Amino acid sequence: MAKLWQKNYELNELVEEFTVGDDFLLDRHLVVSDCVASIAHAVMLESIGLLKKSELQGLVKELKNIIKLAEKGQFVIEKKDEDCHTAIENHLTQVLGEAGKKIHTGRSRNDQVLAALRLYSRDFMLHFQKNVLNLIESLIVFAKTNKNIPMPGRTHMQVAMPSSLGLWAGAFAEQLLDDLHLVQAVYDINNQSPLGSAASYGVPLPLNRELVSDLLAFKKVQNNVLYVQNSRGKMESMILDSLEQVLLTVSKLNCDIFLYSLPEFGYFCLPDELCTGSSIMPQKKNPDGIELLRAKVSSVAGYAAQVKNIVRNLPSGYNRDSQETKAPFIKALVPAIQCVQIAELTMEKLKVNETVLLDSFPPEIFATQEALDLVKSGMPFRDAYKKVTENLDNLKKYDPVESIKAVPYSGSAGNLKLELAENKKSDWEKAVGANREEIEKKLAQLTGFEVRLFI
Amino acid sequence: MAKLWQKNYELNELVEEFTVGDDFLLDRHLVVSDCVASIAHAVMLESIGLLKKSELQGLVKELKNIIKLAEKGQFVIEKKDEDCHTAIENHLTQVLGEAGKKIHTGRSRNDQVLAALRLYSRDFMLHFQKNVLNLIESLIVFAKTNKNIPMPGRTHMQVAMPSSLGLWAGAFAEQLLDDLHLVQAVYDINNQSPLGSAASYGVPLPLNRELVSDLLAFKKVQNNVLYVQNSRGKMESMILDSLEQVLLTVSKLNCDIFLYSLPEFGYFCLPDELCTGSSIMPQKKNPDGIELLRAKVSSVAGYAAQVKNIVRNLPSGYNRDSQETKAPFIKALVPAIQCVQIAELTMEKLKVNETVLLDSFPPEIFATQEALDLVKSGMPFRDAYKKVTENLDNLKKYDPVESIKAVPYSGSAGNLKLELAENKKSDWEKAVGANREEIEKKLAQLTGFEVRLFI
Amino acid sequence: MAKLWQKNYELNELVEEFTVGDDFLLDRHLVVSDCVASIAHAVMLESIGLLKKSELQGLVKELKNIIKLAEKGQFVIEKKDEDCHTAIENHLTQVLGEAGKKIHTGRSRNDQVLAALRLYSRDFMLHFQKNVLNLIESLIVFAKTNKNIPMPGRTHMQVAMPSSLGLWAGAFAEQLLDDLHLVQAVYDINNQSPLGSAASYGVPLPLNRELVSDLLAFKKVQNNVLYVQNSRGKMESMILDSLEQVLLTVSKLNCDIFLYSLPEFGYFCLPDELCTGSSIMPQKKNPDGIELLRAKVSSVAGYAAQVKNIVRNLPSGYNRDSQETKAPFIKALVPAIQCVQIAELTMEKLKVNETVLLDSFPPEIFATQEALDLVKSGMPFRDAYKKVTENLDNLKKYDPVESIKAVPYSGSAGNLKLELAENKKSDWEKAVGANREEIEKKLAQLTGFEVRLFI
Amino acid sequence: MAKLWQKNYELNELVEEFTVGDDFLLDRHLVVSDCVASIAHAVMLESIGLLKKSELQGLVKELKNIIKLAEKGQFVIEKKDEDCHTAIENHLTQVLGEAGKKIHTGRSRNDQVLAALRLYSRDFMLHFQKNVLNLIESLIVFAKTNKNIPMPGRTHMQVAMPSSLGLWAGAFAEQLLDDLHLVQAVYDINNQSPLGSAASYGVPLPLNRELVSDLLAFKKVQNNVLYVQNSRGKMESMILDSLEQVLLTVSKLNCDIFLYSLPEFGYFCLPDELCTGSSIMPQKKNPDGIELLRAKVSSVAGYAAQVKNIVRNLPSGYNRDSQETKAPFIKALVPAIQCVQIAELTMEKLKVNETVLLDSFPPEIFATQEALDLVKSGMPFRDAYKKVTENLDNLKKYDPVESIKAVPYSGSAGNLKLELAENKKSDWEKAVGANREEIEKKLAQLTGFEVRLFI
Repeated sequence: MAKLWQKNYELNELVEEFTVGDDFLLDRHLVVSDCVASIAHAVMLESIGLLKKSELQGLVKELKNIIKLAEKGQFVIEKKDEDCHTAIENHLTQVLGEAGKKIHTGRSRNDQVLAALRLYSRDFMLHFQKNVLNLIESLIVFAKTNKNIPMPGRTHMQVAMPSSLGLWAGAFAEQLLDDLHLVQAVYDINNQSPLGSAASYGVPLPLNRELVSDLLAFKKVQNNVLYVQNSRGKMESMILDSLEQVLLTVSKLNCDIFLYSLPEFGYFCLPDELCTGSSIMPQKKNPDGIELLRAKVSSVAGYAAQVKNIVRNLPSGYNRDSQETKAPFIKALVPAIQCVQIAELTMEKLKVNETVLLDSFPPEIFATQEALDLVKSGMPFRDAYKKVTENLDNLKKYDPVESIKAVPYSGSAGNLKLELAENKKSDWEKAVGANREEIEKKLAQLTGFEVRLFI
Repeated sequence: MAKLWQKNYELNELVEEFTVGDDFLLDRHLVVSDCVASIAHAVMLESIGLLKKSELQGLVKELKNIIKLAEKGQFVIEKKDEDCHTAIENHLTQVLGEAGKKIHTGRSRNDQVLAALRLYSRDFMLHFQKNVLNLIESLIVFAKTNKNIPMPGRTHMQVAMPSSLGLWAGAFAEQLLDDLHLVQAVYDINNQSPLGSAASYGVPLPLNRELVSDLLAFKKVQNNVLYVQNSRGKMESMILDSLEQVLLTVSKLNCDIFLYSLPEFGYFCLPDELCTGSSIMPQKKNPDGIELLRAKVSSVAGYAAQVKNIVRNLPSGYNRDSQETKAPFIKALVPAIQCVQIAELTMEKLKVNETVLLDSFPPEIFATQEALDLVKSGMPFRDAYKKVTENLDNLKKYDPVESIKAVPYSGSAGNLKLELAENKKSDWEKAVGANREEIEKKLAQLTGFEVRLFI
Repeated sequence: MAKLWQKNYELNELVEEFTVGDDFLLDRHLVVSDCVASIAHAVMLESIGLLKKSELQGLVKELKNIIKLAEKGQFVIEKKDEDCHTAIENHLTQVLGEAGKKIHTGRSRNDQVLAALRLYSRDFMLHFQKNVLNLIESLIVFAKTNKNIPMPGRTHMQVAMPSSLGLWAGAFAEQLLDDLHLVQAVYDINNQSPLGSAASYGVPLPLNRELVSDLLAFKKVQNNVLYVQNSRGKMESMILDSLEQVLLTVSKLNCDIFLYSLPEFGYFCLPDELCTGSSIMPQKKNPDGIELLRAKVSSVAGYAAQVKNIVRNLPSGYNRDSQETKAPFIKALVPAIQCVQIAELTMEKLKVNETVLLDSFPPEIFATQEALDLVKSGMPFRDAYKKVTENLDNLKKYDPVESIKAVPYSGSAGNLKLELAENKKSDWEKAVGANREEIEKKLAQLTGFEVRLFI
Repeated sequence: MAKLWQKNYELNELVEEFTVGDDFLLDRHLVVSDCVASIAHAVMLESIGLLKKSELQGLVKELKNIIKLAEKGQFVIEKKDEDCHTAIENHLTQVLGEAGKKIHTGRSRNDQVLAALRLYSRDFMLHFQKNVLNLIESLIVFAKTNKNIPMPGRTHMQVAMPSSLGLWAGAFAEQLLDDLHLVQAVYDINNQSPLGSAASYGVPLPLNRELVSDLLAFKKVQNNVLYVQNSRGKMESMILDSLEQVLLTVSKLNCDIFLYSLPEFGYFCLPDELCTGSSIMPQKKNPDGIELLRAKVSSVAGYAAQVKNIVRNLPSGYNRDSQETKAPFIKALVPAIQCVQIAELTMEKLKVNETVLLDSFPPEIFATQEALDLVKSGMPFRDAYKKVTENLDNLKKYDPVESIKAVPYSGSAGNLKLELAENKKSDWEKAVGANREEIEKKLAQLTGFEVRLFI
């Protein structure tokens, strides 16, 4: 079927190949979101008299039908359709005739794709937040369970001072909770309705942007229509940046697990179900999940950089360049969420080797404690430091389990204050849950059934 | 003078050169912040009996003295000092003897540099927010002043539909307001007190972390001591990411100004004071500010990527790698703030050529309007689109000034709703101002005078 | 069918999903290369007595069969196969039994994928070089055809001094010729045989690495078996870096064409067949190819960065991380080659508007010439510069066509020396052609027919 | 003193601050190169009658004088000078009057900075190549010395198959030799004379570009004058890319050393002189050099990306953006060369713990060998693999020292063929040495003494 902009000349074949790209493949992720947004747009068009009631009914029925097909993987976007928007409009026109031709009234593919992306991203981010909260939960559980198990604290990866599994796991829980604050800010910026901006400059029709925004459970209309367009790509890069920040935290956790589960360390043991084998070496059990997580953090970072490199220094208004941001954006989402899930699974299944941990405290690990004991008895720190340095061969021996109680104040191994993290986690769970519920409710009102947008 | 960790062997000269790096140069930016944090730390040490009152007084007096010297550029950090922390401690010990040796009690250079960086960053971010708000102000003023001046709206940089200078400038104001939401989230995450975490694992002394946090006007203690250390570098990358997002917006504004002030467009004219000349071509007036802004946006992005590449996949606890994040972090801040200032200056000085703008409306720009006029009279959009496409040579002529009023709803050229942006801007100004005031008050209480940390 | 490393426990489902990734999709690009390498490996195994002649014949026949299927898109790699290597080995074992089980003797999937990637990359690079040479050809033709058509030379995008279309197009031809020097260096490094390195440490069998290398038309064996493995990912990043360098040149050409074909400039006119339309604005003709080229240059750069970020700071020997380099590597190749093709097509179809170009010479463009005329009569340059600066309103008028002949020496608009570029191009064509021919001949000897590896 | 382009209006102060940047600091690196290029330019001007013999003599004398001052760090470029080119011209005019004003005849700051950068880069690359060759030498020496010391070969960082220190070190030597091939290609592209291109379009004077090129020991004139300008920034990015490729190799070596010198591995021991201490923990010896090397590899990568991001998608001819490429370029060079030097130093000083290495061979490491023994006796590989997998608890025990001789063919631990690397290294040394010598000779002819350009 025809392109939406079909003219009376033929596009060069190479140019066609070049410009269509993978949109027809990527867009299967956006079909449901596009249909949902189209239903809201149609309801609004009817409310201002640009669609007849019967036309609206026909459109809604057929759009729901497409959603059902898409959920079963049966709505096919062909290369000649260019993208999901064209495929859907062509389908509607084929089935409904006149009404199908009217659905594009008052919008452009520009705000249409923006609406689909915003809905899709919002749903993704709700899932992502949930998964991060699950990971935090597993970290807190691990920290509580292994609260008093000593672990050598390291700096420069060299044994430095006493630490504990509780401190170790708790550190990541708290960091992820802060990361969520960033994710939420990005969520808020995304949660605005772009519809009505059309091709960047609005349309001379009395559209009701507030109605559409409300039907789609957006928090508000994104006001300036040119800003709407200008945020294409940049919104995606904000989301990817926020994912990357979460993954930076996860990458550190992952790096620790990788090192500490090497046989040479032996603090942790990865269960078989997380490992794969070798095609040539019969004995191998390889921590592939951990290695791939390490790599995928870089992949997601690469996608984020790609999007930013594309949008940087572009003029305002729609530019075709933004199509090229779709692939890195959509392709980054699944690995990002998987990395979080793999980390959660690993924390849940990780076996701790307490004996090895207890045996890993060399005398030098208590050197600072000895110096500070001297400080407590009045010696200036620098002098105590010197004295201990000169006697490294005759250090006092402390008990590892006792030693982690030596630091008395909050935030230390002896006084984790895990309840701070627990309370915050619980607050986030409520907030994210409430957002999700409200959105699901509104979208169910609009479509008549529960829809899954992030697919 | 000696390094803080001096031992009885000599570091290889090449290794010394390699490891010292530029810290002794970069750290002049951090001297004041480090002194302020040291005063709070000393006050706390005295409160728990680890410093005598007289020692505290001596330390505070001398630390204030260093601040004064630093503000005049007279506190010199030499290469052999390694960094500002060593230079300051050495200075204190030289002047005060015993008391100087005690200042390092209960902390490590690790949490010391974190504290200095957090204070420095916080002050920077308050400045940065202020500058972004100034740019928003200039955009709103420009939008209001030129509200009804028509401008061809473009997509693919080709003339598309009627737009206005008001819509154009307003778009950037709204986008920056959303960007500020992200910046604020990062500000909040940064505004936590790292002190007490020492070398990542705390110290076995009854430190009062809450007191230090309060004295330094942090919002709260950053609890888990290992998390504190793990956030090194990552916090910097969050800040740089947020700057990059603001600069992406600025880069688009800048790109538009660059194109529209080319003589071939002539919409805008850059005043002489923003241009430079050529060493060989007598006639040249070059928009260097705009070109450098375009480049510096990439530079800041490069610095952000550098920091993330360094911290990705590192194990937890302090790693020396984090030293290498200091240069890209500190070096990104001035260009970031300058880009915003140059954009503001440009918006203030930009000369608008209304005649050229009015002459830039070709008949085709009204094609969509004509199609939608047909829609209003009942024709399906796709048919109207086709009909107009077939009659491109006989388009109706509309008046540019009237045409921008054609889109009736909020957010469009005819109905900008600038008051939304104005109100938000005013809210941000109040919030940022209140933060700044409270911090300045607390720091003045601590030091006895007004201190500037971002230098 | 079973994984090559199947053990008696089940991999966690999420881990399986995570680790398999898209290899089963990406690997369809590598099937032919893998089969070709497998034929050579089998021939070698037979030569050292590890395969019977009849087993070799069976394997070769079936591997050729797979090649035929793959060329028709009929060799399917299923998700459960993990990758093409497993799918092929499973297929061989199903068809041939015992012999199929023997093909993996003396190799690992590690050197197997390396061999496939090297063959695939080599074929790609031969194609890429050919396409770059075609673009150079089109630039030289354009430069010759429009040799004496004046064009304002710009600095800071402001009109600066007289230039010509010949100088403009010739500049890109010469730059691409230099870029090819880099591409060739990378081609050489890639053109080494990795087989025999197995899982990084060789195998205790008397393999004949030289024979395999020779059969596959590699220039030589890549000697150290651990180096072979260590070059995984890094080789890919070298290739991508070299592509990026070519694309940086193309991006500049593209940027010029974009600007100069804007109606406000009008120097060039893009033919319809290179433009697309809008779904809402009937009049639009958008230069989508040019915009996408601009974006895709960033995409390829992003892929290159992704690969480098993954391989940086990894330990030696095989790491699973390298799997994650496959997608960015393979996905970058088609856009890279398309960008070059689109640029070539654009150069071929570009319409030049000579009248507009002639009208675009403002008097100031001759200011330097006037200053240098004074220099020729003995005035110091700085004084001449000053004198002309003070008389910018009364500049002498020169003829544009004459003016481009004013610079007399080689490399300037008046003396392009295009023959230098022509000769170099011709040398490259011969060298690339000879490489290609030799390889095709050897591979045809091995397989019995002509094979296309880059698919 | 005045800017070279001084006009009768004042640049805005903020714009001035923004545009001058750090050039006046960075340019101290370029002063000598600029003077050398200026001498050649002056000699040529005299040869075509645009300078009197006496003027030439004055200029040469004074330029040599500036070189001497610069070498002692006494030639100061002040902020108001903008850059070294202005400082030098101003100095010449002050001392020589008329002749000083003539030196800029026939050139622009654009080709002047290009010439200085090319000379500077060339000298840097000769140094860099020398340092890489030194590292290769140390690797080959290490490989020979420890040729037969066994080391567990790893995949996925898990013990896999027998390897040796010889194989390990040899791998990096061979990889670096291949990297040098890339570096040399970039060296060649850089080694072209840009002078005569002026502000991108040449000048209407009968300059003798070949003479200048020859005097400066460039291999040839870079022909097309617009190409010359278009290569600004891109040349730098090519150089940085090539450095990054070398550093990727070094980073892998460094990662191995880091892991294997952890006490938990204990294969290697870093000598004290390569380690630093802690300000709080008396016992610490930290491998700071290795950690910083790991980080600096990312820094250099960041600088490379920065340059590419700046030059991507810029129009042709000079753009002010290119100034912003100077800092990342120049700042990357010293760390790049230092990383190589630190790696060389580490290889030279590394202590090997042979006992630990011998004790690190668990029985499973011989599993593949056992499977292949079965293969040798006729069992298909897959069956042997299965059989060994089922008997992992009863593996045969092999001797580590013997086991590394098991792989018989070239490139394996038992048959390193180090002479291949040695011969290549020796060829490179000769080639690089010859390049260096010829250049030094020609520059000494020009200036009358030996000059160091990379400072």
